[in-house]
Amino acid sequence: MIRKTSKELYAAYRESMRKIADIRYASAVLQWDQETYLPPKGAAIRGQQISTLSEMAHQLFTEEKQGALLQELRMREDLTDKEKKNISLSWEDYEKQKKIPSAFVRELSDAVNKSFHSWILARKENGFAKFSPELAHLVALKKKEAEYLGYAEHPYDALLDEFDKGSTVNKLNKVFGDIRTPLKTLLDKIMAKPQVDDSFLRQHFPRDKQWAFGLDILRRLGYDMEAGRQDISEHPFTINFNSNDVRVTTRIDENDFGAMTWSCIHEAGHALYEQGLPEEEYGLPCGEAASLTIHESQSRLWENHIGRSEAFCSFQFPLLQQYFPEQFGGLSAAELYKGINKVQPSLIRTEADELTYHFHVMIRFDIEKALIEGSLHAVDIPAFWNEQYARYLNIEAPDDKRGCLQDIHWSHGSFGYFPTYSLGSFCAAQLFDAARQSVPSLETGLDTGHYQPLLQWLRDNLHRQGRHYNSNELMINITGKEPGIDNFYQYLLDKYKNIYNF
Amino acid sequence: MIRKTSKELYAAYRESMRKIADIRYASAVLQWDQETYLPPKGAAIRGQQISTLSEMAHQLFTEEKQGALLQELRMREDLTDKEKKNISLSWEDYEKQKKIPSAFVRELSDAVNKSFHSWILARKENGFAKFSPELAHLVALKKKEAEYLGYAEHPYDALLDEFDKGSTVNKLNKVFGDIRTPLKTLLDKIMAKPQVDDSFLRQHFPRDKQWAFGLDILRRLGYDMEAGRQDISEHPFTINFNSNDVRVTTRIDENDFGAMTWSCIHEAGHALYEQGLPEEEYGLPCGEAASLTIHESQSRLWENHIGRSEAFCSFQFPLLQQYFPEQFGGLSAAELYKGINKVQPSLIRTEADELTYHFHVMIRFDIEKALIEGSLHAVDIPAFWNEQYARYLNIEAPDDKRGCLQDIHWSHGSFGYFPTYSLGSFCAAQLFDAARQSVPSLETGLDTGHYQPLLQWLRDNLHRQGRHYNSNELMINITGKEPGIDNFYQYLLDKYKNIYNF
Repeated sequence: MIRKTSKELYAAYRESMRKIADIRYASAVLQWDQETYLPPKGAAIRGQQISTLSEMAHQLFTEEKQGALLQELRMREDLTDKEKKNISLSWEDYEKQKKIPSAFVRELSDAVNKSFHSWILARKENGFAKFSPELAHLVALKKKEAEYLGYAEHPYDALLDEFDKGSTVNKLNKVFGDIRTPLKTLLDKIMAKPQVDDSFLRQHFPRDKQWAFGLDILRRLGYDMEAGRQDISEHPFTINFNSNDVRVTTRIDENDFGAMTWSCIHEAGHALYEQGLPEEEYGLPCGEAASLTIHESQSRLWENHIGRSEAFCSFQFPLLQQYFPEQFGGLSAAELYKGINKVQPSLIRTEADELTYHFHVMIRFDIEKALIEGSLHAVDIPAFWNEQYARYLNIEAPDDKRGCLQDIHWSHGSFGYFPTYSLGSFCAAQLFDAARQSVPSLETGLDTGHYQPLLQWLRDNLHRQGRHYNSNELMINITGKEPGIDNFYQYLLDKYKNIYNF
Repeated sequence: MIRKTSKELYAAYRESMRKIADIRYASAVLQWDQETYLPPKGAAIRGQQISTLSEMAHQLFTEEKQGALLQELRMREDLTDKEKKNISLSWEDYEKQKKIPSAFVRELSDAVNKSFHSWILARKENGFAKFSPELAHLVALKKKEAEYLGYAEHPYDALLDEFDKGSTVNKLNKVFGDIRTPLKTLLDKIMAKPQVDDSFLRQHFPRDKQWAFGLDILRRLGYDMEAGRQDISEHPFTINFNSNDVRVTTRIDENDFGAMTWSCIHEAGHALYEQGLPEEEYGLPCGEAASLTIHESQSRLWENHIGRSEAFCSFQFPLLQQYFPEQFGGLSAAELYKGINKVQPSLIRTEADELTYHFHVMIRFDIEKALIEGSLHAVDIPAFWNEQYARYLNIEAPDDKRGCLQDIHWSHGSFGYFPTYSLGSFCAAQLFDAARQSVPSLETGLDTGHYQPLLQWLRDNLHRQGRHYNSNELMINITGKEPGIDNFYQYLLDKYKNIYNF
């Protein structure tokens, strides 16, 4: 048999990865449709169709011949650095995925379908009890998954690693331990000051105008509408089928201007990242996002450091008044800025301010950790939840819908996802400071509604890297230091000193 | 090794067919999205993703072990009749699909993507020359496909069989030969009479109102909106992902009321069929439509025998006036009926009346036959086209867009599809006459807008049968005779005698 050249082998690898990606992204199209346009009676078989595609992609990726191809390519020296990186990451993925039987992938996917529907039902009936048996089943499967994957210290580590390679309970205990007290102190300080007014957000804002305004903002931030689209869904999300088809969704509440606007900007941040991934690496690791933490750093950066900044409020204020002359006619840009940055302990994570948000995450982190290690049972979540909310935020959920039934994540089997929201916020602040130092025209740009210099900097330094570096490496490369909480804490301090006068 | 029971084997067969169906229908979701919501830049990779799924479904279905399973099941006597029928049809499909290499499936799918895009471009530039090289390539591949599949007399037979099992050039030559002269005579007779007025269709009809009216009509005909939805696309179509998710699309022309309305009813006919297929047979032959001819019989039956009937015009007239008081205020139901049944040779097949429509089909049939047998080359289509239109309809296309570039079918590689439109119309008339004889409450129902008796009759006699019987068998079972042209011709005669007074 003639020995194949590295070029030939790499082409075969690309081709197999392309095929697997086609299936994975086909599944993503089915999920997008499920959340946007699926007629109600179509739900049952849709779940099954998605399960089949997941199982199929997993089977193809973990075939013996795929392993043999990767093994052979790992020995080849005459590949480019990027090619070597793809091979090494795919090999890591292969070794990991290989540990999970395809039948288990299907079992998990089917369990997720069931649990998702029971969560919907539980929310409708506003009682966690309807959801907890399915959740308990899912937790058992996730524990099994953790055993399949293996871990050094804590079973939850295996799941955290799925969302952000290298993330562990130990590291997160440390990060959250470091930030918990300073945040609590800052919160107490703010709560002692006179509160700012955000009542202007809760006027009547017609659906069509909000929709048009949201699209306008998306375009202004640089989202390419030719390579994506916006639709309505119950929970806003971003989903990609390749870098030329990255879609966002939003929701509109006619009595709450905030519900759509900053969620649009948040999803735009995710979407700008996906649209900026290297198209030529479709299906390969270097064509994917670095991690969910880095993904979240992008959404937070745009949502908070841009969308909730004084510069943004001041520059976009005339646009806002143009769309909503009646609602914002008597308001000033300064009042807008203060109002949308109001700090107030509240029940719903997705509506929380930038400070109290992290208590929502920490509570969820503690619950997931306890569920996976077995020190908490699904049925006991509501009591634990309420205890923690009383402790950190001094509030109590009047019902499960506004309490432990509020998030979709657990019903999807996504344990280990929540911490990336906080880590993403911390990274966002660190990245934004680095951008400010590196890009001279950045500040002027933000003052005048030109976001291109910032976007270009992110494209060059972060988006185009794909998954070449993990979160830690990427943050060191770009900001010169490990990811930490300092920039974030300083950012909050500066913002709230200014708003709350202390 | 323990011999498996027939029950176990049949369950394994069901399971494998379910999986293949999941993939096929996933591909259908991607196609639906492609025609409705796909952002422009997403088109290239979307085509590739669809090709991968087609190839994958074909590979799974033609695996050796699938053949072995079917072989084993063919020997089993202890299966129900329906189970035996599924096995025998799947075996037929298997033997047929097995003849086509998976690599060829991919090659064809890729060629279709290319040719579809070149057709779009050719239409934009209004020149057939842009399309003809890709079309020639596609014709070459379809000839190859015909060779793979095999045929007794004419290579085109192999392709016709794909859309309607048992359909051949010989049979179609006979049918079209029989109807050509009577239709031409009837047309000449009508053209000698004073023309009816349909100018009321070309007023301004606001988009939103048309949309709402279309949905209203869909619901009135019995289309289940919980198991489907309507969207906008350039070319109206019906697509199904299972009997609980059957979607239709339409197009709206604000200056032509006919463009949407009867296309809505047409697609409703297709959709009612798919929604009525037996849900429990998902993925199995008996869960599928009998043939494209039968499919078309359903769309034509609802579009023409219901939607263009005097009863429909008269009962729905108040609704029409309610939606469009200005446009239809001065009109009568009788004038509406006459106008929407106006016979007039015209350029565009989809806008043709019920009589001249079949000349459009015959011309396409002759072209396809000649292309596949090699007596006509793609590049010579425009000249041949114009010659035939002059001959049968005495008109000339001013450009290719209104001539041989008007249909999407060839760009999709669908050679053999067009004849089912005519056969479907002929079957529709035959079925409708049978329904009238069998269902006592039918006429009263139609006079009073109750379509349930007709729908129920179709459900019981046709929809629920799936693919258990082929077109011929089904028509004999339901109407007591082979499909023919008599009922159709009589229907036309009655209709036009009344409208044109001869």
